[in-house]
Amino acid sequence: MVELKNLQAFLKSKITGKTLYALPKQWIEHSFSQYGGKLSMKDGSCFVDPYEYFSLVIEQIVQNNNGADYSKSLAQLRGEKDASWLMSSKMYGALPRATVAYNHKGFGPFEPEDIFGYRESGTFLKMIALLPYLKNLGINVLYMLPISKMSNIFKKGEIGSPYAVKNPIELDDSYADPLLDGMDVQEQFKALVQAAHLLGIRIVLDFIPRTASRDSDLIKEHPDWFYWIKIEELASYKPPYVPELPFKIPDPDDLDIIYSNEEVKKHLGKFTLSPDKIDPEKWEKVKHMDGSVLSNIAKEFGIITPPGFSDWVNDPQPTWDDATFLRLYLDHPALSQRYISKDQPPYVLFDVVKSSKFPGNEPNIPLWEYLSDIIPTYQKRYGIDGARIDMGHALPSELQDMIISKAKSIDPAFGLIAEELEMKNDVKAKNEGYECILGNSWYVVVRSREFYEFIEETVPNLVVPFIASCETPDTPRIVARENGSKLKYLAPALLYLAPNAIPYINSGQEIEELQPMNLGLDNTIYGKTILPPDDQFYGKLAFFDYYAMHWNNADGSMYNYLKWLLKLRNELSDLYSGEFRYAYLNYQDGFTANYSFWKEEKGFIVLGNLDLVHERYIEVFVSETAGRSIEVENVVVISRYGKKKLPISGTNVIPLNLLPADFLIVLVNYEV
Amino acid sequence: MVELKNLQAFLKSKITGKTLYALPKQWIEHSFSQYGGKLSMKDGSCFVDPYEYFSLVIEQIVQNNNGADYSKSLAQLRGEKDASWLMSSKMYGALPRATVAYNHKGFGPFEPEDIFGYRESGTFLKMIALLPYLKNLGINVLYMLPISKMSNIFKKGEIGSPYAVKNPIELDDSYADPLLDGMDVQEQFKALVQAAHLLGIRIVLDFIPRTASRDSDLIKEHPDWFYWIKIEELASYKPPYVPELPFKIPDPDDLDIIYSNEEVKKHLGKFTLSPDKIDPEKWEKVKHMDGSVLSNIAKEFGIITPPGFSDWVNDPQPTWDDATFLRLYLDHPALSQRYISKDQPPYVLFDVVKSSKFPGNEPNIPLWEYLSDIIPTYQKRYGIDGARIDMGHALPSELQDMIISKAKSIDPAFGLIAEELEMKNDVKAKNEGYECILGNSWYVVVRSREFYEFIEETVPNLVVPFIASCETPDTPRIVARENGSKLKYLAPALLYLAPNAIPYINSGQEIEELQPMNLGLDNTIYGKTILPPDDQFYGKLAFFDYYAMHWNNADGSMYNYLKWLLKLRNELSDLYSGEFRYAYLNYQDGFTANYSFWKEEKGFIVLGNLDLVHERYIEVFVSETAGRSIEVENVVVISRYGKKKLPISGTNVIPLNLLPADFLIVLVNYEV
Repeated sequence: MVELKNLQAFLKSKITGKTLYALPKQWIEHSFSQYGGKLSMKDGSCFVDPYEYFSLVIEQIVQNNNGADYSKSLAQLRGEKDASWLMSSKMYGALPRATVAYNHKGFGPFEPEDIFGYRESGTFLKMIALLPYLKNLGINVLYMLPISKMSNIFKKGEIGSPYAVKNPIELDDSYADPLLDGMDVQEQFKALVQAAHLLGIRIVLDFIPRTASRDSDLIKEHPDWFYWIKIEELASYKPPYVPELPFKIPDPDDLDIIYSNEEVKKHLGKFTLSPDKIDPEKWEKVKHMDGSVLSNIAKEFGIITPPGFSDWVNDPQPTWDDATFLRLYLDHPALSQRYISKDQPPYVLFDVVKSSKFPGNEPNIPLWEYLSDIIPTYQKRYGIDGARIDMGHALPSELQDMIISKAKSIDPAFGLIAEELEMKNDVKAKNEGYECILGNSWYVVVRSREFYEFIEETVPNLVVPFIASCETPDTPRIVARENGSKLKYLAPALLYLAPNAIPYINSGQEIEELQPMNLGLDNTIYGKTILPPDDQFYGKLAFFDYYAMHWNNADGSMYNYLKWLLKLRNELSDLYSGEFRYAYLNYQDGFTANYSFWKEEKGFIVLGNLDLVHERYIEVFVSETAGRSIEVENVVVISRYGKKKLPISGTNVIPLNLLPADFLIVLVNYEV
Repeated sequence: MVELKNLQAFLKSKITGKTLYALPKQWIEHSFSQYGGKLSMKDGSCFVDPYEYFSLVIEQIVQNNNGADYSKSLAQLRGEKDASWLMSSKMYGALPRATVAYNHKGFGPFEPEDIFGYRESGTFLKMIALLPYLKNLGINVLYMLPISKMSNIFKKGEIGSPYAVKNPIELDDSYADPLLDGMDVQEQFKALVQAAHLLGIRIVLDFIPRTASRDSDLIKEHPDWFYWIKIEELASYKPPYVPELPFKIPDPDDLDIIYSNEEVKKHLGKFTLSPDKIDPEKWEKVKHMDGSVLSNIAKEFGIITPPGFSDWVNDPQPTWDDATFLRLYLDHPALSQRYISKDQPPYVLFDVVKSSKFPGNEPNIPLWEYLSDIIPTYQKRYGIDGARIDMGHALPSELQDMIISKAKSIDPAFGLIAEELEMKNDVKAKNEGYECILGNSWYVVVRSREFYEFIEETVPNLVVPFIASCETPDTPRIVARENGSKLKYLAPALLYLAPNAIPYINSGQEIEELQPMNLGLDNTIYGKTILPPDDQFYGKLAFFDYYAMHWNNADGSMYNYLKWLLKLRNELSDLYSGEFRYAYLNYQDGFTANYSFWKEEKGFIVLGNLDLVHERYIEVFVSETAGRSIEVENVVVISRYGKKKLPISGTNVIPLNLLPADFLIVLVNYEV
């Protein structure tokens, strides 16, 4: 806890008493029962002395200190032996640079850094200040999108995407807060992890082993870990079109067709050897030149790393300009070698990308060692608690195994989330060593039929839990969906209380933020035109542009609602270990989502009306639901409008009215 | 011509023969009858060796060298004694950073600077390359929006507005092209002016004497030239609301009301003395500290320059966050002094802003000298030919006089454009020493009734010419207007050929660019949502964001059309010195715009159908039009579809059919 305490001492020493730093009032309201520092309100904004504010937040966090080593994972600290903690986790997903971005000047436009020296874009210090707000919300896992050093070239918007990783081991310097006056970003991140652990919040990070940024720091020492093309080929570089094949993931049978295609042949001709192979002596000079290595290679060798593209044949999406593939094998894919001439330089094609399906014979062992040491580095250095592995499905299974087993050997309770959107791949993910899958709840919640099937058939039968999300960093916001004003209540209620669910709140969901962070899933290009055009962030996406969420528009009701749901999940936790049962209803037309859990005489039944237009009258047959005779003594019905004791006992039938998009939680012989 | 030749020699020495620099094909097509350098086409883009390309452009320009000193204004060079050259000018308005912005990589997204060291945003070198393209279009005046050092703070978008001037004497470094390897931006601008003069193109610049950026470089030496408020007042700083008054420019009679208003009193209390007055010793230290002067003043004194606001009382527009007013008088406005307490620090209010109407008694002479020396500095250093003065109407008339007379004393033929949008103020502008007004043609062209009045009543009676523009940097694009597909032809035809017109092409108009550069005039916030959302520049405005125009979408037809119009104006120039006459038509319902010019037996008649829906049959009575008997021997009708000789002679009546939004030019006894 050295770092956190240093940080606090430093802040304390700088207190000026001038309240010139604006903050979202929610950060203060939900962190302090009564804020003890100086505070002034101007035009609806809270102004504090930032040094005082941050030191008071930390003071409060540090009160939880019981002498443990908070630089270790919570599991290590608590002596946990497996990642079953994920089963009871409540997750908040953040892109810190946007999550805690705010116009700290309190006037004029948002600026990433302002004249007063405030970093208005997100920093780790501000993430520390957000922790009590998250704790109060009921969160115990903070999942962060990549925070490692981002690349700044070939970028789509104002700033590089967090997924264009320039150095997976280093943290991005933009996360250092200038208020800490030059304190190392690593120290600041250590303090964040310590603070989280003090509050019982685990830290899960996102890692991307399959790709690197085009100008990756790794090029300097390992130019041969990358593919290379001639610069003059760049302008027309794209995945070759194979008219004989449909849009598909390639199969071994397709290789004949692929490699006899003329465009493919031309494509292969664009690649060259890496600079160290072209001219080792020159390379020794170029690698030590000033400035960007990639830029120097481009100038001196006339070659460059190519943009990435999808592992599907004939995928219409454009190239991924800010990322390039790492060369996982020293040879070409084993099944493809017969098509390739002897002097073909290393190349990228659908089969190469999909190395899980088309491995080579010679693994690039030093690269594999490097990639599988990334997570352990974060474990040892910071004590992180878990990781999501991006595009794990495209990795050779041996590499994926290496990554997972190294992490587990350090911390057997290290949590691993698979980037697996297909719910039916739960068994596969489990077998690969993952404890949890992302799933596609965000997709089904806006589709009544699919939502019903999801709740009734998919979710109860999972072998690993799923991330129960109404929205993710890649999807539209739940409030911006059709019927969003109803679904923003119904969807989290049914999902967060469902079996095998890990309740997930997407940063901004709790303040009803409208603008998505990315358009990656279930969206169209029009998804970025959600805000009114006079909004500073109109048309901006947090993945590619500076973005600050609309804290000043929020009234706190969604925060309180989600907090209430998470608390409810906890209060019912006792019963989840009981028996899962479908509810037995007087009638069912596929629109009344339902599930229940029973332990002895006690149970709860969740009912959701997925018909967003019509209300319905429902009778619940209690004994048939529980699968045995239950003596009903006490029935309490909870809705988002309140809690009500039903004046019935000694009956087997509970009559209920469900408004459109409404849900009810029926407690039988149980109270919370 | 030293600079231009140096530049060429340098470029020539760097030629590599590698064609890796993408360019709009229009730049090449319209600059060279046959491009002599290496050129390769990839995916519809032209790729050149940039060193070769630019050196060939300059080589061609330099061929016009006849030994004159091209570093002087064209008027000085030609011995012109007045600015009558404006009467025959054809103007192109450019914001260079956007006008010549292009993705020179030729793939992926546009980036202001890319990994190959190409500056994709506009540079003076690229403006040089654009000159032959402009020359070929028929342009002889290049008007540029502010190119002086821009501020980077309190900015609305990705980059500072060109109107937030940090230093009016220095050029913005972003205009230096890295291809020229550290050559000074001043040298590069000198070369641009020389190149323009070699082609007979004059350079007119935009100057903004009324305001400065919030962090103006002038603060360091002259903190007392600025107004100052306490930092803690910033968040709520805005023009006070005076409920007793409507939305209006203040009159002397309003001062009683204004100064007895409580909000105004509070407003006055926000101001402080300048830092040098607060604590001269401390100021001496602070002014020499490292880093931004404004930032240091804010930290050390707790004060800052306030944002600007409108000179109208109760103007609903927000504060101008990136600009602050200069302190033109050392005392308060003379008429307001009776309301002000003795110890009131210098302050900004409607009357102060409108110093033309509410002058003080003590002009801030050193500042006036500074402001009136700005244009002369550009005249002496670069040989510019003219200037537009921004917000001249808000300047004290003595200051305006100083500015104009100093410029004229150096170059009596220096051209001065007033920022005067009201056509009826032509006499006022002329009296103040301006040779030309902006006017509001861009407003009337989309309003048939107003357009008719404009052409028939306003334009023929002007005492100074007006800028004949269908669009400006502040307005919507003509193609994006309702009926834009028709008006883009009709409006420039009627305007460019009109009496007292200075044909003006707004950068991008010739390639039918859709997105406006700013929303300042005749637009709404939705004006920025014109592009398809998947366009990289969706929602971006060139005034506030990086922007590159859509060169690759243009087919050249609008360029050729405008070129044809400008040529036609030249071909008819002989007759403009003849007699102006309205056309005498068989009937007139206020939709057939018309004018004609006559010299002896020769004349031309311009007819435009402002009815965008209905065609009309028109008979022109020739002798009645000319006001005397004309022997019609030869009638040629020119339309945008071609030229046609009418098979009539010896008649007085010319029958014509005008399609909706069509125009015809009827030549009587004259041919072009």
